[in-house]
Amino acid sequence: MYGIIGKMIAVSGKRNDLISILLEGTKNMPGCISYIIAEDATEDDALWITEVWETQEHHTQSLSLPTVQQAIANGKPLIAGFGERYETSPVGGQGIS
Amino acid sequence: MYGIIGKMIAVSGKRNDLISILLEGTKNMPGCISYIIAEDATEDDALWITEVWETQEHHTQSLSLPTVQQAIANGKPLIAGFGERYETSPVGGQGIS
Repeated sequence: MYGIIGKMIAVSGKRNDLISILLEGTKNMPGCISYIIAEDATEDDALWITEVWETQEHHTQSLSLPTVQQAIANGKPLIAGFGERYETSPVGGQGIS
Repeated sequence: MYGIIGKMIAVSGKRNDLISILLEGTKNMPGCISYIIAEDATEDDALWITEVWETQEHHTQSLSLPTVQQAIANGKPLIAGFGERYETSPVGGQGIS
């Protein structure tokens, strides 16, 4: 499996709008095992996306899906920047096994 | 919901053993929605645990479960240290909704 843990910073006050766009645009992605969006508990404009994919190729291919392309286009103006990003190899646990 | 993204560093060469202990000891925890263990893709001894709980109290209470207590006791000698830790409020996405 292939995983990404990534932090995104929304334009001030736009985190909820950005999350709605991301949730809507990331349904039904082939090869996606888990895709969880979370608000950072202490930073008002920060959010985390934790992803688990069958393979890295599934993640790469997801970026070409029309729904994801649309989410990227709609979300881009609401993104102020990106924070930490970690790549992983998920091995098990509740929610993926 | 309450979430934690945390990095753990195993004693050199002991990551697989530590992961096995964690996987075994964290099954069937009340209020646990997702608990994914992943190897860091670039650091040989590092692993990530991403957790989603119904409430923060469920997480706190899980630390008293006999299975978790046993995992902590067994895993402790294999842990060299802890890395980044982020607390979150998960809001949705595949794997939790």
